[in-house]
Amino acid sequence: MATPPKTRERIIEASLELFNAQGERSVSTNHIAAHLGISPGNLYYHFRNKQAIIAELFGQYERHVDSFLRLPPGRPMSIDDKTFYLEALLAAMWHYRFLHRDLEHLLDSDPELAEGYRLFARRCLQGAQEIYQGFVEAGILLMNPAQIEALTLNAWIIMTSWVRFLCTTRSQSGELSEAMLRRGIYQVLALEGGYIAPQALDAVDALYRKLHVPLEQVI
Amino acid sequence: MATPPKTRERIIEASLELFNAQGERSVSTNHIAAHLGISPGNLYYHFRNKQAIIAELFGQYERHVDSFLRLPPGRPMSIDDKTFYLEALLAAMWHYRFLHRDLEHLLDSDPELAEGYRLFARRCLQGAQEIYQGFVEAGILLMNPAQIEALTLNAWIIMTSWVRFLCTTRSQSGELSEAMLRRGIYQVLALEGGYIAPQALDAVDALYRKLHVPLEQVI
Repeated sequence: MATPPKTRERIIEASLELFNAQGERSVSTNHIAAHLGISPGNLYYHFRNKQAIIAELFGQYERHVDSFLRLPPGRPMSIDDKTFYLEALLAAMWHYRFLHRDLEHLLDSDPELAEGYRLFARRCLQGAQEIYQGFVEAGILLMNPAQIEALTLNAWIIMTSWVRFLCTTRSQSGELSEAMLRRGIYQVLALEGGYIAPQALDAVDALYRKLHVPLEQVI
Repeated sequence: MATPPKTRERIIEASLELFNAQGERSVSTNHIAAHLGISPGNLYYHFRNKQAIIAELFGQYERHVDSFLRLPPGRPMSIDDKTFYLEALLAAMWHYRFLHRDLEHLLDSDPELAEGYRLFARRCLQGAQEIYQGFVEAGILLMNPAQIEALTLNAWIIMTSWVRFLCTTRSQSGELSEAMLRRGIYQVLALEGGYIAPQALDAVDALYRKLHVPLEQVI
């Protein structure tokens, strides 16, 4: 017999999988229970409604991003850090892609979630600004404070808007692919294109090549 | 007695005003009719439902952007063109701001609108790419083709995501101000920050100062 914590975990995982594949609006708690072969009553024992599951997934996502979107303590930044942040953001965006697809709707339905998200956005903007500042201090990027501020904001918007951009602009319907999200990360890297210090150009170019996905495969 | 074309025009104008002020979801055709002091039947004579009004406003918006988002024929680009495009985009974004607030929802409810929007997005990306290319040819920006492609995509995403970014991130609620959208245009200009040719730096800096709105006034 499954113990309650295990069922709770399975509900969260199945919900994420179904939300990502079908969109959150198309998936009800009954779908989730049926998918797991448990009764709706069993699901309600763990989560009083779908909003509570969404709030749990938002919490996971936020804790995960909070865990890596920060400066490495006590050492200067390197190009490898740039790869690390971009890959980690790509993985997070892919794993929780339903969140970015219809964010406005999810936040509109839950004021507490909306308030939490505002605070999360501010932490991310703060963390990202410190990271860009770190790259400037390490001599990898050449930017003044106003440029760092504008870049940080643009990076956040591209990051959080990329999935919706794909959904509203590409002509093929069907599921998103990891390659389509990889192009989003390339777009974030491209924001720094004009600010790379001469001695970092080769290493950053290699990263561009690694992340590049032709636009025809995306939209 | 108002002639039908005049009433039709008034319905469109009042709808835009109410959608912008209250959000499209909060405004019904009955609200619009009451606001104008006409009967619901009179409104339905001109528009069979709210979707038809939204489609009309989308059409206006698209025709308006199509009219200016193109290269000036037969002459090289100047810094003044940069000001012109940014001011025109700001005015269009402000005038039709409800469209950008909840785009996913509007397109989800109307497949024909969604298809039209996809074509519009492609025309805009094409037009914007030619404009950036024009600035490169005029020696104002220094970029290679891959950088132009990435910049164009990022500019489109910042442009179309700015209003939603404000709605999900700022702590004050209440109406958007023109200054808040002006900061969005500044963010689009900031995308080119690292690519400005030395001889254009002073003129572009003046444009930065003109468009700058401190972040504290925005979020």
